Amino acid sequence: MAAEDADATLSELGEFAVIDRLVADRRQPPAVSLGPGDDAAVVFAADGRTVVCTDMLVEGRHFRLDWSTPHDIGRKAIAQNAADIEAMGARATAFVVAFGAPGDTPTAAAVQVADGMWHEAALLGAGIVGGDTVAAPQWVISVAALGDLGGREPVCRDGARPGDTVAVTGVLGRSAAGYEVLRNGIDGFDELRRQHRVPSPPYGQGAIAAQAGATAMTDVSDGLLADLAHIASASGVSIDITLDTLTSDEAAVADAAGATGVDARQWVLGGGEDHALVATFPGAVPPNWRVLGTVAATAADGAPAVTVDGSPWIGNAGWQSF
Amino acid sequence: MAAEDADATLSELGEFAVIDRLVADRRQPPAVSLGPGDDAAVVFAADGRTVVCTDMLVEGRHFRLDWSTPHDIGRKAIAQNAADIEAMGARATAFVVAFGAPGDTPTAAAVQVADGMWHEAALLGAGIVGGDTVAAPQWVISVAALGDLGGREPVCRDGARPGDTVAVTGVLGRSAAGYEVLRNGIDGFDELRRQHRVPSPPYGQGAIAAQAGATAMTDVSDGLLADLAHIASASGVSIDITLDTLTSDEAAVADAAGATGVDARQWVLGGGEDHALVATFPGAVPPNWRVLGTVAATAADGAPAVTVDGSPWIGNAGWQSF
Repeated sequence: MAAEDADATLSELGEFAVIDRLVADRRQPPAVSLGPGDDAAVVFAADGRTVVCTDMLVEGRHFRLDWSTPHDIGRKAIAQNAADIEAMGARATAFVVAFGAPGDTPTAAAVQVADGMWHEAALLGAGIVGGDTVAAPQWVISVAALGDLGGREPVCRDGARPGDTVAVTGVLGRSAAGYEVLRNGIDGFDELRRQHRVPSPPYGQGAIAAQAGATAMTDVSDGLLADLAHIASASGVSIDITLDTLTSDEAAVADAAGATGVDARQWVLGGGEDHALVATFPGAVPPNWRVLGTVAATAADGAPAVTVDGSPWIGNAGWQSF
Repeated sequence: MAAEDADATLSELGEFAVIDRLVADRRQPPAVSLGPGDDAAVVFAADGRTVVCTDMLVEGRHFRLDWSTPHDIGRKAIAQNAADIEAMGARATAFVVAFGAPGDTPTAAAVQVADGMWHEAALLGAGIVGGDTVAAPQWVISVAALGDLGGREPVCRDGARPGDTVAVTGVLGRSAAGYEVLRNGIDGFDELRRQHRVPSPPYGQGAIAAQAGATAMTDVSDGLLADLAHIASASGVSIDITLDTLTSDEAAVADAAGATGVDARQWVLGGGEDHALVATFPGAVPPNWRVLGTVAATAADGAPAVTVDGSPWIGNAGWQSF
């Protein structure tokens, strides 16, 4: 950014100059046929299908500007959309971004959001190919992600079958722990704070799970039990997980749980936003995936259910959107 | 919607039940391989490329709930994204939608937004394939559109060449006129009000222009002169339009201009949001397109410029985002 613009607000600079700043010096990956600057972008889809999803983040609801840097927020917005693409067994190739903010927002902050988005997209080899910038009373970031299935069938939530093994890759409970540390204003626990601000989905593992024959998959955005319940319900099966398989996740958040007076298992079983991937496999589980439990037929007189060590779990049911 | 839920708010019903209401009984077009209900959707892209764009609408900035019905707002959100896809010479196939609203919003209003979106998408043979619903202090609607080029090259803004003919299809000035009628609380002019609430992009004409050899194209979202300036600047050419070619548009808004004390030509030349398509053609202009003027080389000592009857136009420069 030119020095004279460094302190300019969005309204001082104006939409087109802001967009020029946001798109300057970005290098698009080979999957992008036409990048930003026209009415729309063009992304290659050699597979003949495009995977697509969208997620919106609202200031004060999904992030706080006093907790996260604009760079963090940009990374998180891309990561949570990319995780949804991974959960289909696909790879994110491109993102479009709509960014709403008050006119007195420093343009430098918007550029930092874009930098964070590009940082995260680069981890995937993907590009930010287009967007929209508008005036809004608070920050609102809406991302849509495109993904490539690489010739594989998508892994949906409805394919889990009795006898399948349930496994997870990525971390659990960290984001929820970091949130509580931040909310309570407790010192320390920098790594947990960081993991709340910017999740680390296990990029690439979605495609690996698909190649390994995963029958169902989702990302952990609402909480492990809540997201497993989506698979159980869609597949018409029941799922039981073994608490002992989660000791490493519990251990990672145990000190923070002690400091905030929370049961660490509530974070591990009920905390969302880490964007781990959880899937069901009829055969062997790929490297880097940890077995959590098994899929069983739902009892003739019962509904699909998720149990922990054979019993219903009483506790945090996961994230509520409204 | 079940009768007992008719008065429920978004927060009373909860995210998943709201989504169930929004997606119930929708019929996806053949271009959609996998619709809503999983982590992401899958859309066919037989062309091997996907056109993609996004636009965000914020309550109070891009629409008012006392001027537009939720159905109108849903239609407009789809229409303005579809117009961007048309402007590439493509056809919209699918949309994803992020919807933010206060928790006390009636679920019925959100369903009306979705009904409006489906109404507009049906005009295109397209589907709403996925989305996100979140809590926000005011309504925010962000749409991303996917489009199909049908084997053609995209029509960008940078291809206009000296000697090309400039032509438009669709209407001009109506949305700006309807806005002023609404803003001034003037009775009558129902058709102009309607055209402000819900634009009518000339669907299908983008592909027709591409087939006819259009060298550059954009939709009129910021105002005719402002959008032609984007083509002139990107193409490194100058554009002159003849005011007499716009008499039918002027006539359509003349009464409203008289009633509000505005020069009708300001609306026709400077008003955005009608989402007409404007393009440049090296040869004959397709049926339903009206010739506006010509493309010329930019003077050796000058910058790309848009003129009206050979002179710079002094007036409304078009929409400002911030």
